[in-house]
Amino acid sequence: MSGHLHPDRLLPSDPVALRVARALHDAVADLPIVSPHGHTDPAWFATNARFANATALLLTPDHYVLRMLRSQGIGYDALGVPRCDGGPVADPRAAWRLFASRYDLLHGTPSRLWIDHCLMWAFGIDTPPCAENADVLYDRINERLQDDDLRPLAVLNRARVESIATTEMALDDLSHHAAMEKQGLIGRIRTTYRPDDVTDPDNPAFRYNLERLGELTGQDVSDWDGMIAAHRTRRALFRRFGATATDHGMPDAQTADLSAPAKQALLTRLLSGPACPKDASLFRAQMLTEMAALSCEDGMVMQLHAGVRRNTDPALLASHGPNLGADIPARIDPGAGLAPLLARHGTDAHLRLVLFCLDESTYARDLAPMAGYWPALRLGPPWWFHDSPRGIRRYLDQVVETAGFANLAGFNDDTRALLSIPARHDVWRRCVAAFLAGMVADRTLPMPEAERIATWLCHGAARAAYANTRAAEPGGGSQTSTKLVSSSAI
Amino acid sequence: MSGHLHPDRLLPSDPVALRVARALHDAVADLPIVSPHGHTDPAWFATNARFANATALLLTPDHYVLRMLRSQGIGYDALGVPRCDGGPVADPRAAWRLFASRYDLLHGTPSRLWIDHCLMWAFGIDTPPCAENADVLYDRINERLQDDDLRPLAVLNRARVESIATTEMALDDLSHHAAMEKQGLIGRIRTTYRPDDVTDPDNPAFRYNLERLGELTGQDVSDWDGMIAAHRTRRALFRRFGATATDHGMPDAQTADLSAPAKQALLTRLLSGPACPKDASLFRAQMLTEMAALSCEDGMVMQLHAGVRRNTDPALLASHGPNLGADIPARIDPGAGLAPLLARHGTDAHLRLVLFCLDESTYARDLAPMAGYWPALRLGPPWWFHDSPRGIRRYLDQVVETAGFANLAGFNDDTRALLSIPARHDVWRRCVAAFLAGMVADRTLPMPEAERIATWLCHGAARAAYANTRAAEPGGGSQTSTKLVSSSAI
Amino acid sequence: MSGHLHPDRLLPSDPVALRVARALHDAVADLPIVSPHGHTDPAWFATNARFANATALLLTPDHYVLRMLRSQGIGYDALGVPRCDGGPVADPRAAWRLFASRYDLLHGTPSRLWIDHCLMWAFGIDTPPCAENADVLYDRINERLQDDDLRPLAVLNRARVESIATTEMALDDLSHHAAMEKQGLIGRIRTTYRPDDVTDPDNPAFRYNLERLGELTGQDVSDWDGMIAAHRTRRALFRRFGATATDHGMPDAQTADLSAPAKQALLTRLLSGPACPKDASLFRAQMLTEMAALSCEDGMVMQLHAGVRRNTDPALLASHGPNLGADIPARIDPGAGLAPLLARHGTDAHLRLVLFCLDESTYARDLAPMAGYWPALRLGPPWWFHDSPRGIRRYLDQVVETAGFANLAGFNDDTRALLSIPARHDVWRRCVAAFLAGMVADRTLPMPEAERIATWLCHGAARAAYANTRAAEPGGGSQTSTKLVSSSAI
Repeated sequence: MSGHLHPDRLLPSDPVALRVARALHDAVADLPIVSPHGHTDPAWFATNARFANATALLLTPDHYVLRMLRSQGIGYDALGVPRCDGGPVADPRAAWRLFASRYDLLHGTPSRLWIDHCLMWAFGIDTPPCAENADVLYDRINERLQDDDLRPLAVLNRARVESIATTEMALDDLSHHAAMEKQGLIGRIRTTYRPDDVTDPDNPAFRYNLERLGELTGQDVSDWDGMIAAHRTRRALFRRFGATATDHGMPDAQTADLSAPAKQALLTRLLSGPACPKDASLFRAQMLTEMAALSCEDGMVMQLHAGVRRNTDPALLASHGPNLGADIPARIDPGAGLAPLLARHGTDAHLRLVLFCLDESTYARDLAPMAGYWPALRLGPPWWFHDSPRGIRRYLDQVVETAGFANLAGFNDDTRALLSIPARHDVWRRCVAAFLAGMVADRTLPMPEAERIATWLCHGAARAAYANTRAAEPGGGSQTSTKLVSSSAI
Repeated sequence: MSGHLHPDRLLPSDPVALRVARALHDAVADLPIVSPHGHTDPAWFATNARFANATALLLTPDHYVLRMLRSQGIGYDALGVPRCDGGPVADPRAAWRLFASRYDLLHGTPSRLWIDHCLMWAFGIDTPPCAENADVLYDRINERLQDDDLRPLAVLNRARVESIATTEMALDDLSHHAAMEKQGLIGRIRTTYRPDDVTDPDNPAFRYNLERLGELTGQDVSDWDGMIAAHRTRRALFRRFGATATDHGMPDAQTADLSAPAKQALLTRLLSGPACPKDASLFRAQMLTEMAALSCEDGMVMQLHAGVRRNTDPALLASHGPNLGADIPARIDPGAGLAPLLARHGTDAHLRLVLFCLDESTYARDLAPMAGYWPALRLGPPWWFHDSPRGIRRYLDQVVETAGFANLAGFNDDTRALLSIPARHDVWRRCVAAFLAGMVADRTLPMPEAERIATWLCHGAARAAYANTRAAEPGGGSQTSTKLVSSSAI
Repeated sequence: MSGHLHPDRLLPSDPVALRVARALHDAVADLPIVSPHGHTDPAWFATNARFANATALLLTPDHYVLRMLRSQGIGYDALGVPRCDGGPVADPRAAWRLFASRYDLLHGTPSRLWIDHCLMWAFGIDTPPCAENADVLYDRINERLQDDDLRPLAVLNRARVESIATTEMALDDLSHHAAMEKQGLIGRIRTTYRPDDVTDPDNPAFRYNLERLGELTGQDVSDWDGMIAAHRTRRALFRRFGATATDHGMPDAQTADLSAPAKQALLTRLLSGPACPKDASLFRAQMLTEMAALSCEDGMVMQLHAGVRRNTDPALLASHGPNLGADIPARIDPGAGLAPLLARHGTDAHLRLVLFCLDESTYARDLAPMAGYWPALRLGPPWWFHDSPRGIRRYLDQVVETAGFANLAGFNDDTRALLSIPARHDVWRRCVAAFLAGMVADRTLPMPEAERIATWLCHGAARAAYANTRAAEPGGGSQTSTKLVSSSAI
């Protein structure tokens, strides 16, 4: 037994279950990858340029690794992360050496599985980085990065990526997607509408951004209906660049369903001066319900990523900026929080809301019971810190019995690191195979059903969950439930 | 390995543990069923009438199945669920066809295990329903329902039901139980006193119901002591119809211990006009403590089912009514909430309080430590959504180490579906066997002890937990702790 | 398979994983014990006197056992626990008989594992206590307690205790440690600074204690800086008696970072009359941040034990006192609560904060993400009710993937019962072996790494976590991160 990319890694050790798990894994290992939510850089695909070096590829964009090194007292400067003040930081080779010398810190973490996989998959490297081999690996990776088959589009092909979504803010000019459109890439590559820049009054640029939204769309955003119309316009533009989904980040899972006059009064208050915390929260809450209403109209799938305390280290935010590892999950109350939105739109056949949260105590208590009732709801896969073998196991253990398989949205990799995409899907597929093998082995699921469900969880579910709910409609007027249609695949 | 009712289903796949689990399961598989809490219809037993058809038996009363179908966009009308407005809904056969055609949605859920078991146990059907066999199964079930041995009382016999409790509200006339009394059925079949109709000021009929309670008992319910005396009278009546327990449903786990003047002032406020939320909550909280005091007097076992948001879909409530799947669990704080009640009565040898909640994060943090200290407390089995193989596993995993086995109340099926009773006890017994087999296999529990504990968890514990705490008393005055007595069985 | 101290107890049953687990357990079974946090009585070591009898050794100081017996209706008088009023209680032999006759209640609990181990390890007794053998065992234990090799210091030797920490309040005179100093025992045996007696305004003696602190140190404790200086003085004294750590018990995990005037105003209010709950909470919160600042100065490791409702049974507190089993865990919010302290000191290379909590829902959501980012944080082992085989398994399952192994503080036994020390470390070591064997068996960790990590978790981590962060500094001025240094051992 070796820990380094054993063909049976993450599968059970018990011979009975192992045999089943292998068969299930074989059935899904080579399925195309559907990557309906993530944070890859659209410039990669628009320009198809080579990656610069091993550090820029594997270390500095990976907040999982940065935070683990940080937790052991290694500063971000030493890791080559650019400073906000443009001050000097370690050069890429020095940063790589430091990373390689502390690679052992990643034992037991999914980062280790992902990077091991990526080194093997892309570079044929089958030994873990360490102080001794740091320079050799660095040079080998950099050399290999010159090959055309490691350019971004070639990576998508090699990884059998059927479709991949990036995520852009409402005010983004989508210039990279425009460039992709000319190359016929839109569809397989698509944007996602994430309007947090104009829905969060706690963003210091909120009022400025809202004004910009008005300019871009020719709407009067000081009028509630005008602001909604502006979103409608932007959503249509995003759909032109392939978007089938929207995405919304929230510190909690609160929604609201105010009267028209209350909405206008709230907006007017927010535009007239600094937002009080209660108004800021209420606006975010109401905007989720508005986005659900627009989804009912235009069929875009709505994603909600709820419950993160962002930027908990003010010193890091000041020195190196956001998204570097200082975000910490928070407890949420989705049952109470989503009640207003669901009471309003939860049975609309054209709403599909994919929920993500980092509070595992809600899996069995709130999320699975809600997804097992509301036609509009699907559960997103385990997110962020929980997108790991044990995290996946806890997720499936806690949601399947009440939500079933048809109410799950399959997997998405949610990554900023292109080469981690096949690695992350690999982990999910192995964990799904192991989970279903457990059900076959305890004799509660027949093997043919297990194979069908494995395929669903590794491919069909994501495709079904992220299809525009009005896509199949002639004239857009049919009332067929897309959940009903899509789930018949399972 | 087949998934359809394999004799070793839910037992471990590892051969060592499997051998042990089989032996443990053999020891408990044929024990009589004690069903001390549930929601079967007393009319079934009083009249012993045949069930109408497959749909009325298996689909429309099963909110687990209804909600799963609903979550996939299937309306309640199409499932034949009666409308509040009496409007037309699908006929039973059409509803059954729809159910059968989507039976695959139940994979991974306990509903699947229960219905498979029931089809086999009662009808000898060993293939899962599907679109193709829907009519054949429907006709076969209906035909078989004509047999006398599928009448309700025959089902109890065949399932070896030693005792079964129904649940009636405080104002119920208990006419079905009166009819049963004449047939000598009371004792084996018993009612349970659930006074939520007169303890919840948020019930629109609260004041009307309280008035009725006064009329039924001849007490002045505008006086606190009079109201308590009215409960005392009703409890005595329920005991005459076999009741050994009361039951209390609460949105949270809050209790209170007010002074006499504060109690009277609260009641007076509530009777004088619409309840403010705080008063409503305080009244529910105080009434739990009052019920505990009455249990100390009359020895009735007190059950608390805490932490559900009821009727979260207002549209469904309006169209089809309550208890159809739109209830969602809520987070509770039993440690703080129960403190007033326990400080007052928690060491009284005549109080036994069986706790149920749907917030699994309280299992190891609150419930097990509390049950492992307070003589009055026992932990009810995993409830509702968690009454499933994985739910049972998480429950045992999280409570046993701190609460031990003697502080558990065994199993209860809590069902509205008569034929699911043997199926649910079957799942519990298998999961108990698997859990204890794990302890034998990791060499921390000797086999003879495991057998003794398995029997306790599958039979003795429920019988002990639900025995009136004053039942064994000559003259009702002994101070022997019934927990002490009963637990010596383990 | 026997349940009584089988050599493979707590190891997997699957033969593949068992072979690995055995090898890992062999590698750690005989490592010296580092016991950096606990509640053994310093008088034992200072006087090295014999233990009085089996009851005083095994029953009356063990709140785990007392509470379990209590939960089954057995009173503390009958168990020989001294009353506050000095009234009569059962004699030791009678109490022992009662305990032995109900020993079966401990099945499934870690207490059973610990006591079985202790009986075998210290007394060669390999049968569980019961009514029949109660007197024989009692006499045998008492006889054996006369042997010199069961005196406290001999027990430390026999258990291979490398170092052990007791816990003393800020006002403690440390007389036992002074006696130990004369015998050259300090270092191997050490105190820990726990200033809860002078940091909790809800303590009825708070103002009196604070005055005493001023007298002992010659500081004006009505002045904020004077009060801090008083702590500085006491901490130095504790360090003279070996202390490398402080410890802080809190009902929640709240910290604060007030301005100097606000701190002084708070202290002045508290000294001028009874504390309002908000001020009491704020003072505790601010004092944690102050203690962190002092740790940055003097290098003492800071422990936080957060989230317990103490003394939930007022009747027991009145009759027999605290620490007898009526403490119940509470939900905490460490993410929000620790933010002020961490924003101030979380990246200081000389702060090391070891966190313990009883709210397992924070493991994966808050604690692991926090420890995987903040250089100052390490996670303490599972605490109290969760210091059990399943508790350990849940802990490792939920923290390792995000916190890694290097951010864990290893194990501490936290016990009041001397003879449970080897038993508790034995359980930890077996569970660590089983956990890592699972990773080897699912092929995600190579065996040599597993052995290295096992050794770290069972020995190196505790030693590293509890080393004074300035210990290695020549002149105390080096800025080397001790986390960096120490973790290179892994």
